[in-house]
Amino acid sequence: MKMKTEKQKMLDGELYIASDPELMRDRAYARRMTRQFNQTTEMEDQQRIQILKELLGSTGDHIGMEPNIRFDYGYNIHVGENFFANFDCTILDVCEVRIGDNCMFGPGVHVYTATHPVDPFERIKGPEYGKPVTIGNNVWVGGRSTINPGVTVGNNVVIASGAVVTKDIPDNVVVGGNPARVIKEIEIRMTEA
Amino acid sequence: MKMKTEKQKMLDGELYIASDPELMRDRAYARRMTRQFNQTTEMEDQQRIQILKELLGSTGDHIGMEPNIRFDYGYNIHVGENFFANFDCTILDVCEVRIGDNCMFGPGVHVYTATHPVDPFERIKGPEYGKPVTIGNNVWVGGRSTINPGVTVGNNVVIASGAVVTKDIPDNVVVGGNPARVIKEIEIRMTEA
Amino acid sequence: MKMKTEKQKMLDGELYIASDPELMRDRAYARRMTRQFNQTTEMEDQQRIQILKELLGSTGDHIGMEPNIRFDYGYNIHVGENFFANFDCTILDVCEVRIGDNCMFGPGVHVYTATHPVDPFERIKGPEYGKPVTIGNNVWVGGRSTINPGVTVGNNVVIASGAVVTKDIPDNVVVGGNPARVIKEIEIRMTEA
Repeated sequence: MKMKTEKQKMLDGELYIASDPELMRDRAYARRMTRQFNQTTEMEDQQRIQILKELLGSTGDHIGMEPNIRFDYGYNIHVGENFFANFDCTILDVCEVRIGDNCMFGPGVHVYTATHPVDPFERIKGPEYGKPVTIGNNVWVGGRSTINPGVTVGNNVVIASGAVVTKDIPDNVVVGGNPARVIKEIEIRMTEA
Repeated sequence: MKMKTEKQKMLDGELYIASDPELMRDRAYARRMTRQFNQTTEMEDQQRIQILKELLGSTGDHIGMEPNIRFDYGYNIHVGENFFANFDCTILDVCEVRIGDNCMFGPGVHVYTATHPVDPFERIKGPEYGKPVTIGNNVWVGGRSTINPGVTVGNNVVIASGAVVTKDIPDNVVVGGNPARVIKEIEIRMTEA
Repeated sequence: MKMKTEKQKMLDGELYIASDPELMRDRAYARRMTRQFNQTTEMEDQQRIQILKELLGSTGDHIGMEPNIRFDYGYNIHVGENFFANFDCTILDVCEVRIGDNCMFGPGVHVYTATHPVDPFERIKGPEYGKPVTIGNNVWVGGRSTINPGVTVGNNVVIASGAVVTKDIPDNVVVGGNPARVIKEIEIRMTEA
């Protein structure tokens, strides 16, 4: 029976060692690419798009992000068509982050897949793990929101600014608060859908 | 009847197209100026002040901000005398942000005037809009607070760290939480006022 | 009787004048060192560690932080063995911040010791003050958390992402929310302790 690499354990949501040489190389690459992105100027849109298309797992044709971006690996981030993230987006992508079409992030959005054991003696041993995040189509994530590991966000959702999303969110709702709760349902006019 | 420009629609709080060439030029200017500010060192106080006085709509004589600053346009931001904002202040100023005298922002304060339609099919068409933010005199905005579009904050207010301000705030109160609520009233000693 | 310097007043938690020349020099030094840290690349781990060991009041052998770091003075920050802080940690250390062994901070954690008078007429006079922050051993501070002046956090605590910690936290609990409240107790298996 073949042993799993630390990377495979990480992607599978199992406890893994982040100081594994392969993972350190992968993170160093993402650090370099995000640093280069963050050092571009407002005149260099094409370089920004090129870096994102190289670094992310997959993107649509149209993608825009504003500096400073912070990712762990990049390759676990998949965004659909017409993705835009305003200033200072941080995504800890030790597991997959899948974002649908026509999504927009306000400034300062953080998405976390990375987590640690709650038991302190387990935690300080070092191994950590992740849980994937999924975001549907047409989602607007308000500025300063945080999306926690393992969360699935439905289609057409609006996440209010400053929300801390700790649980799954169904389609067609506005959520807000810490922890985020449903504030109202969005009536979808089917003639347009 | 003369058609409104996209910029005029934006300033008037109507739906507008952010990819309008005039607005793109204005944002590129603000991006350049804020980048130059963020690249100054701690030895270059005078350059920082000069950039802020050029970029903002109006300021008092005394103004200080710490990098990294992030604005959309700059010219819609009006601050009174003795304004100070600590590290990493983000202001999305598609509409006016008017801040009174003697106001101080902790680190990481975000002020948003920019918003989008909640209806997903309206939102993904592209047009967006804004609502102005007004902050009174002698206001202390605690670190990591978020102030939402359309909000008016009274005089002498203290906004606790991490608050998400979604509604108007009267004079002379401390607010906190997400959404922010009044925590206590501040007794004003009139002999000093 | 010898007069206290502004620095001594600051360290003692009394009202002090931040524009005092000695304090301005100290802050300029911390600004320079943190700027140099933030300008290092992902290849320069040793320079990063060296800057942290020079700038902080005390550290263990193993310490890691990711850019951008923001401190007021640096010398009031004491971290134990095996400290790690992910991206964009801000610590306003006008008073002591004492962090135990085996602590880890997620991205975007803010720790504040700096505060101001709530009375607006006292506040706008200028003098400000601080209260120390203490964090125990084996504490995991989740991403985007804020820890307020005067707070003591016990051992083995987990602070959920986005929490705003306004009061002391006992040992062995998970806290979250704004303001942070105990979500659950952590059962410590004594055989491992």
